[in-house]
Order: sequence, then C-alpha cells, then structure tokens
Amino acid sequence: MNDEKTTILRSDAARNIRRILDAGRATLRRNPQASVEEIARAAGLGVATVYRRFPTREELVRGVLEDIYTTSIAPALKDAENEEDPRSGVLLAFSAALHTASHEGVPIAAGMTMEIARSFIDPVSRLIRCAQQKGLMRADLDPEADTLRLLIMLLGVLPTLSPVSDGWNRYLRLVMDSLSLTPTEPLPPAEAVVDPFRHT
Amino acid sequence: MNDEKTTILRSDAARNIRRILDAGRATLRRNPQASVEEIARAAGLGVATVYRRFPTREELVRGVLEDIYTTSIAPALKDAENEEDPRSGVLLAFSAALHTASHEGVPIAAGMTMEIARSFIDPVSRLIRCAQQKGLMRADLDPEADTLRLLIMLLGVLPTLSPVSDGWNRYLRLVMDSLSLTPTEPLPPAEAVVDPFRHT
Repeated sequence: MNDEKTTILRSDAARNIRRILDAGRATLRRNPQASVEEIARAAGLGVATVYRRFPTREELVRGVLEDIYTTSIAPALKDAENEEDPRSGVLLAFSAALHTASHEGVPIAAGMTMEIARSFIDPVSRLIRCAQQKGLMRADLDPEADTLRLLIMLLGVLPTLSPVSDGWNRYLRLVMDSLSLTPTEPLPPAEAVVDPFRHT
Repeated sequence: MNDEKTTILRSDAARNIRRILDAGRATLRRNPQASVEEIARAAGLGVATVYRRFPTREELVRGVLEDIYTTSIAPALKDAENEEDPRSGVLLAFSAALHTASHEGVPIAAGMTMEIARSFIDPVSRLIRCAQQKGLMRADLDPEADTLRLLIMLLGVLPTLSPVSDGWNRYLRLVMDSLSLTPTEPLPPAEAVVDPFRHT
C-alpha cells in the first residue's frame, strides 16, 4: 500500500472513531441503556464499522467516558495544577468533574473504572498534599484515600438537583470549608479504598 | 367469629408478618434481587401467605425497609432529640443511619422513598435548626434542603469501604466539622430538592 492510501485510510478510521464517540456521547446522555445499534444509527455508520472500532458495548461506553475525560476534565486538571493557591486548584478540579458529570449524566457512572478515576484522583491528591505542606489544608487529610470519597460524595448530590443545575456548588463549598479549617479533634484514620466501580 | 378466635387469628397474622419481615431482611441483605418465592421459603411459609400480607414484591421490600427504620433508626432519633447539645444529636442520628445502611445494605437503596426519608430528615432538620439558633452551627445551612443531601453524600462512601466497616465515621466527622465552623464566606443558595428515589 502506498503512503497516500495509508494516510487516507488512517484519517478515515480517525473520522469514524470521532463520529462514533460523538454519537455515543449524545445518545448515552439521552438514554444510558442505548444499544450499539442505536449509536451506530446516530453516527450514520453500519453496526459492523462500530464493532470494528469497539468490539463490545462495554468498550464503546469506556471509549466515550475516556473521551469525556480527555476533552472536559484533563484540561481543567492542567489549569488546576497551575493555580498559585493549591486550594483553588482543588476547587477547580472538583468543579470540572461535577460540571461534566451533571452535563454528561449516566455514561460517567456506567463505564467508570478505577483506572479512569485514578487520572483525576492522582493530580488532585497531589494538590491536597501541597496545600497541606503549605499549612492551607488540615494535616489529618489522607489524600490517597479521601480524594475519591470526596468526589463520590459530591457526585451523590446530583440526582437531587434539577438537570444541568450548578446546585452542587453549595456542597462543594461546604466540603472545601471542611478541608481548610483547623480541626479541634483529628479525624478517625482513613480506611483503604475498596474499588466501588467493580461491575458485578 | 367469637373473640377468642379473632385474637388467635390476629396473633397468627402478626407472627407471619414478623417471620416474613425477618426473612426478607436477611434474604435481601444477602441478595438484593431475591424473589418473593425465596423470601417465602426462608420464612418457612407458602408464597400465597406472603402475597396475602404483601401483594407485590415492591410492597414487601418497602415493608422490610420500614421495619429496619422502626427498629434501628427511630430509637436513635428519639435519643438524638434528647441530647443536650443538638450537634451531638445530629451526629447520633447520622451515625445510626450510616451504621444501619452499612449493615443492612441494599434493601435501603432499593426500596427507599421520599416518605421514609422524610421520617429521618424532619427530626434531623429540627436539630440542625436548633443548633443554628444556639449559634452552634453555621447560619447559612438550609436544613430543609441540606439534610437529605448530607445523608446521601455520606451513604455514597459505603461502597468504598469493606463491608460492615465503620470507616464512614471519618467522613461524618469531616461533614460535622463543616457544619459547625464559622464560615468566611456564605454558601451559595440551596436549590430545592428533587426526589432522587423516583424509580423510573
């Protein structure tokens, strides 16, 4: 195969993947149970083409989730790491996660894995540790165990809000306040995290 | 029917209901998808007898949940209301809810309704309001909207803990700290609660 042909095929493949991910994101947002057939139809592609790129529905959902992460969360994390006050960085990172979850809805929960969660937890944990070192956050936080749990706690508020609302902001502020205060009593020790995303 | 016969029948009915609820509680704890047939077998009763008391599976699950509430949460709420410091009352009420949820598991989530939740939210909201009036909790809390959300946030931690662990206690303390501090900035306003238990 000559180089030109290869390039055309490659860009065709990339374009199809983009169409599948965009259609998957929109379709799953409306209907978290949407089938691969529905997503293929929304993408204007044959089911076989979709299965060639994503051999199972699970892989497709994970692909959509990774795409959401790359386009909506990763840039915010980069900004967060550049904040002068690490507390602002933590606020910014959680805000991006909650804003995205409230807009994208269920794909987040359905396809979440510890691996995707890690790409959020690790940079945020570093920011919390940095804030602790500067004396800006309480010393009894255990970022490794607490970051995921704080995120899950805040995500839990979303079903009590009207869709696409930013009412989560109130509870994020409450949590941020609890991280930054000087405790009168140290917290009980943090238990190691059990993976809550095991899909049994 | 003479009085004696009626009394015997009534106590038979009460005994059967007790057996169904106990079997339901134990069976659903092990397997949240358990069928009415499985629960009847565990209770040592015929399926027809179970259906006579609880005409649908949904009513049976709700019955189990109300029984859990009555035996495990209601007495703690009574104690909570007698605490001299209303903050201790709030801590005690949330502790009872989290302890019960971590021991009873999924029936809680599966059958939860706003009506059952209300019987927890209302007394806890009163305690928070009392603490606010005494200047012991921040004035910008909106107990009516916040109590349910704080409960849901804390329940969200349970799947990250090993079963029957009391590791939730750390996050309850963190939340209690955030309620009792003097805020530097008031919280954004509370959005009205959307019922998160609508089973669609």
